[in-house]
Amino acid sequence: MASPLLLDGKGTAAQIREELKAANSQRRAAGQRPPLLAAVLVGNDGGSESYVAHKIKACVEVGFESRLLRFASNISQNELLSVVNGLNHDDQVDGFIVQLPLPPHIDAQVINLAIDPTKDVDGFHPVNVGRMALGLPTFLPATPSGICELLRRNGIVTSGMHAVILGRSAIVGAPLAQLLARPQEPGNCTVTLCHSRTQALKEHCLRADLLVAAMGKPGFVTADMVKPGAVVVDVGTTRVEDRHRQSGFVLRGDVAFDEVAPLCRAITPVPGGVGPMTIASLLTNTWQAATAS
Amino acid sequence: MASPLLLDGKGTAAQIREELKAANSQRRAAGQRPPLLAAVLVGNDGGSESYVAHKIKACVEVGFESRLLRFASNISQNELLSVVNGLNHDDQVDGFIVQLPLPPHIDAQVINLAIDPTKDVDGFHPVNVGRMALGLPTFLPATPSGICELLRRNGIVTSGMHAVILGRSAIVGAPLAQLLARPQEPGNCTVTLCHSRTQALKEHCLRADLLVAAMGKPGFVTADMVKPGAVVVDVGTTRVEDRHRQSGFVLRGDVAFDEVAPLCRAITPVPGGVGPMTIASLLTNTWQAATAS
Repeated sequence: MASPLLLDGKGTAAQIREELKAANSQRRAAGQRPPLLAAVLVGNDGGSESYVAHKIKACVEVGFESRLLRFASNISQNELLSVVNGLNHDDQVDGFIVQLPLPPHIDAQVINLAIDPTKDVDGFHPVNVGRMALGLPTFLPATPSGICELLRRNGIVTSGMHAVILGRSAIVGAPLAQLLARPQEPGNCTVTLCHSRTQALKEHCLRADLLVAAMGKPGFVTADMVKPGAVVVDVGTTRVEDRHRQSGFVLRGDVAFDEVAPLCRAITPVPGGVGPMTIASLLTNTWQAATAS
Repeated sequence: MASPLLLDGKGTAAQIREELKAANSQRRAAGQRPPLLAAVLVGNDGGSESYVAHKIKACVEVGFESRLLRFASNISQNELLSVVNGLNHDDQVDGFIVQLPLPPHIDAQVINLAIDPTKDVDGFHPVNVGRMALGLPTFLPATPSGICELLRRNGIVTSGMHAVILGRSAIVGAPLAQLLARPQEPGNCTVTLCHSRTQALKEHCLRADLLVAAMGKPGFVTADMVKPGAVVVDVGTTRVEDRHRQSGFVLRGDVAFDEVAPLCRAITPVPGGVGPMTIASLLTNTWQAATAS
């Protein structure tokens, strides 16, 4: 079998950043300030630190302004609500995110509901979730829209495909199921949403023309679960201990890449697949927030 | 094979109305006014006339107040927006619906967005659509929630089932896919959403433990498309000409009932299946609107 197309999220994201950089230069040449993304980080979770650092770095690369607001993990819910409220009313801030997860004493949904939907560049507020479901213009959630954009820019036509999604989370699986079922391209897939209660999971996987793994179970999808010629998208990024690395860990996807890749028409690597696209989508949303206001 | 369980929507809806009637009597005995549902009807579409009449009749049966606002089909969008605005600000009105379809010169989404989400008992406003997607308390759309309630009250445990839904409309198929995938009962289904672009539709149908037909194509689902022992829910209610009837038509579902029923574990009839449950759900939402305010 021919070697699979590598869905190069790193390269595709770089291309999107180039486009945003050029558009931003034009905007600045027209005398307008650059878009500003603020990120709220609570506590010292290693993954969260890393995600936020990547987001800030991406802003710098495209010439957006950014602002990092750090708080100790013992910040109260009311204090965090005040922070959100301040960002809502700060005209310099076009969009902001509150990095998840939050400490257990804070109700993430209460924080989410407090974010001004017009600055909700994560697309997690109910108004934006609902607008997406209804096909209205909105901020699309970064990971699902990043996956769609990765497919689109790499010439994967999804119409008529049977997409099987593993994982029903509110930030990846569930919204991606909606996006892939939309009557447009990318979209127009028959979509099967699988999860922890799914029976005969392997049989579902084997029927997929487009298989998306978003469970956070390293190496879960093996070669015997993939139909030859399928397109495989790996959303997993679990930190697995690796003493040979300076960091002490390696990022592992939900797909056993080495054995699955030879079967595929196209596949995303981990790292360098969905991750960079997620950040590119966040930049796109920030651009949209700045240019709409 | 044993004869199938008939999922008697008419009887189940009557039971829900009895419960609402009893709760409403208690409410009135406590000195509070009954819930009030208003319905806005534009033009003279036969189906719409009939739906609204059934909704008003159901209100009367449970002792709710109702108000019917009728307008000619040439009402302007701005005039209709004024009507919506009036209802939004009328403290006597707990919830209201604008019956669809609207004439082509009116943008139904503009009207939808103008409805106060706290009075949106159809559950069509983006805020409520998004709250449903996120599992937050909200007004659930009447047909999907009516189907879930019909299954629940008739002892159909859906957890682990493979549900196949035919039709991706924003008011039935798409939200039902979300409800059936939720991590609760009813729900916890593996859900496949099929539509006009689906390839090999029959094979998808044959894999369904729970098959929901919501396409509006009379008699589309035939016996060769149904797995023996499946639960079949028929959302179709197409008016088909019938000269032998005084009305001149008969309501036909998407399922060829006579040939499919003998195969099924359970099946909804048309009429008397999903239709009455939809109206019962609307009453439940109206009750919720009145008691929350």
